[in-house]
Amino acid sequence: MARNTRVEADHHAPPVTHILAEFVATHPSRGWSDAVDHEAHRTVMNWVGCAVGAAKHDSADAALGAVQALQPAAQSTVLGRAGKVDMASAALVNGITSHTFDFDDTHLKTIIHPAGPVASAALALGEHLGCSGRALIDAVVLGIDVSCRVGNAMYPQHYDRGWHITGSTGMLGAAAACARLLKLDVTKTTMALGIAASQPVGMREQFGTMTKPFHPGGAARAGLMSALLADNGFTASNKALEAPRGFMQTVSIKNDWREITDELGQRFEISFNTYKPFACGIVIHPSIDACAQLREQGVKPEQVERIELRVHSLVLELTGKKTPADGLQAKFSVYHGCAAGLTFGRASEDEFADDIVNRPDMVALRAKVHATVDDSIDEASADVTAFLTDGRQVHIFVEHAIGSLENPMTDAHLEAKFSRMSDRILGGGQTQSLIQACWALGQSADVRELCRLAVPAGQ
Amino acid sequence: MARNTRVEADHHAPPVTHILAEFVATHPSRGWSDAVDHEAHRTVMNWVGCAVGAAKHDSADAALGAVQALQPAAQSTVLGRAGKVDMASAALVNGITSHTFDFDDTHLKTIIHPAGPVASAALALGEHLGCSGRALIDAVVLGIDVSCRVGNAMYPQHYDRGWHITGSTGMLGAAAACARLLKLDVTKTTMALGIAASQPVGMREQFGTMTKPFHPGGAARAGLMSALLADNGFTASNKALEAPRGFMQTVSIKNDWREITDELGQRFEISFNTYKPFACGIVIHPSIDACAQLREQGVKPEQVERIELRVHSLVLELTGKKTPADGLQAKFSVYHGCAAGLTFGRASEDEFADDIVNRPDMVALRAKVHATVDDSIDEASADVTAFLTDGRQVHIFVEHAIGSLENPMTDAHLEAKFSRMSDRILGGGQTQSLIQACWALGQSADVRELCRLAVPAGQ
Repeated sequence: MARNTRVEADHHAPPVTHILAEFVATHPSRGWSDAVDHEAHRTVMNWVGCAVGAAKHDSADAALGAVQALQPAAQSTVLGRAGKVDMASAALVNGITSHTFDFDDTHLKTIIHPAGPVASAALALGEHLGCSGRALIDAVVLGIDVSCRVGNAMYPQHYDRGWHITGSTGMLGAAAACARLLKLDVTKTTMALGIAASQPVGMREQFGTMTKPFHPGGAARAGLMSALLADNGFTASNKALEAPRGFMQTVSIKNDWREITDELGQRFEISFNTYKPFACGIVIHPSIDACAQLREQGVKPEQVERIELRVHSLVLELTGKKTPADGLQAKFSVYHGCAAGLTFGRASEDEFADDIVNRPDMVALRAKVHATVDDSIDEASADVTAFLTDGRQVHIFVEHAIGSLENPMTDAHLEAKFSRMSDRILGGGQTQSLIQACWALGQSADVRELCRLAVPAGQ
Repeated sequence: MARNTRVEADHHAPPVTHILAEFVATHPSRGWSDAVDHEAHRTVMNWVGCAVGAAKHDSADAALGAVQALQPAAQSTVLGRAGKVDMASAALVNGITSHTFDFDDTHLKTIIHPAGPVASAALALGEHLGCSGRALIDAVVLGIDVSCRVGNAMYPQHYDRGWHITGSTGMLGAAAACARLLKLDVTKTTMALGIAASQPVGMREQFGTMTKPFHPGGAARAGLMSALLADNGFTASNKALEAPRGFMQTVSIKNDWREITDELGQRFEISFNTYKPFACGIVIHPSIDACAQLREQGVKPEQVERIELRVHSLVLELTGKKTPADGLQAKFSVYHGCAAGLTFGRASEDEFADDIVNRPDMVALRAKVHATVDDSIDEASADVTAFLTDGRQVHIFVEHAIGSLENPMTDAHLEAKFSRMSDRILGGGQTQSLIQACWALGQSADVRELCRLAVPAGQ
């Protein structure tokens, strides 16, 4: 997207990441002068002295208090797996897994995926505390409001500059949610937000690697630890967000403060959250939706002679891969999206598996899809016509794809999506119980009931 | 310093940190519509499904592998205290304590305090691994080279914008040091640097709060965890530093790549490290040094009628507090610095204690110090004349204060500084043993010897 290109971007930088890595990994031991080696000993000695000297300082006590709150280690559940870990690690791992399939939620105004940081931190802490489901829901609503309002204030310049906004606002939402669960007062909550403000996580260059889902996980852990630190008396600036050298002015050239203050407590940003029906980038969604509707109208893949697809130019620019070789490439192929929609009526993570992508019928069907650019069609829409072997034509126009704000996923859709992901991990019966536990969370006396259901039985 | 003022800084932002904190801490439970509450349940349910669904993904295995490397919890020493914690927490706390007195080291080209992030991470991991002292020294030299070279490339614009450069480059040095200790190959070291690149820590607005020393601590922990993640197969962009939306271009408008590549492996940035002789901002150091030299020449406080101090205007601009009320204010008082230098011959953390600052003889002596601005004197220099009651005058001109690159702390100075911090924590005998262990580190078979000496005996 042209808007996102920084004018001053340097596309010809030398590969310094690799250069430094090679230096660190291969430079010989003691490959420097005696003077350098002596300076290294002086550096270490001075550091040891400073650390020993401050070992009984208030800040050491506060930091150790927060760290020791993580022990014993087995505190909180990694969703879908046996074996608990400390709550900060649980926040990290659940934040990673919930974003791994690019299948989570989206606050469309900012393209923040808000639950990853906020819910991961809140559930890990809430499980350890044994809090009520109501307390957890409250924390999630308030935490997401904090993340998304700060995001609203800085979007799009902050994102355009290179920040993965989910992780670079998520630590604030996670800190807010955890401060709420810990019942911190206003002063300590200010400190929690302040400590978190020093810890934004994530650059967009990481997209396509495991470090992308690390961003919500790292933000969840940072927010949780910030709240624990504040609870133990750790201090931060009470203007950490807004000061000239505070977080927001440091990481964004746009800061519309009213996005934070207007209608606070009346308008809740979670109202504008959406859920991905398909496990791929959002621009393919209308085309998948249209082809799934063809299938609903009785069109079978073997009847199809040709599919004509008319879409906005952005769709082919971002996802124009005609012959994807594997699942990862298929996520950038509107052709595969159409084939999956028509064949399966869905495009979850399963339909982007390598073996599905390479199945002969899928290869053949992709070849029958012909896409043309039509910029009179909105990028949130798609126009599809199936030409069948018997001469019939079936036409579908999708204005707003399923999963958009205008055409949201129903609760039944969400349940079906949940089952497709969870059945193989937990089994169908337990998955249904877990779904019911999610719906009933606001009435649950203890979130640990939900956590128990999220672990494979017998483990 | 005028140079550091951002043109576009907004000094009239509303207090949004406090506003959000008050909202989070005080908004009533379920203080929103049924629709909002239902959306919260949908958000949580969708998040649980995504997390359960990806529970067996490679990235979950890699992240859990790194997290489980932290267990059992008692792995690494908090310097100066009994009771080990997990190595990531030890890295965090030692990074905090080593920076708490503002008394650590300084790479003057970038004002990075390099040991805090790098040594804290390396020793915590090295202790757990039982590595040799040589391996630790190698890791520290290489890690500091990575932090400071990236800092050189971005300084001063990155710092001017608002980043506390110690924490926003330190995670790279910490990752490099830990990758080296783990003997990661070039590919995995690239991943470690890449994962760390998404985790800069720290804004300058936090100066004056505990979150300032949190920055090197947080960077140490982030770097250590990045290396553990890479060791477990976690991936990142191999252009995470230099890409247009990678770390460096996202956080700095200046990037001089040659600062990273020139003379790599020949020039070592640790050669330019310096150590603070006095526990306060560096502009007061020449004046303290001059008054300590008066004392060495036999001048006693009770002989002094008047002290005339001539300094650069910056000194009074930053540290012109004539009547400091407590230790924190005294750190910004060149008058107190002079009184401490003449009375004690030093200005360590002790001489900034509240009771020393308020002692009648110190109050009286500060009143006798008269400072005048003379911009013909460099900001790194000071000109002091003591007028004694017997009519004598003693004049001292300090061109480069002790602790500067031109007039470095000797090894004996470093030992004396170390003892003043450590004696009360470890006792004098054990402190001497620990100092010897630091000097002999390069020959030590196992860094755990040093760690044992850094904990109060009998605990």
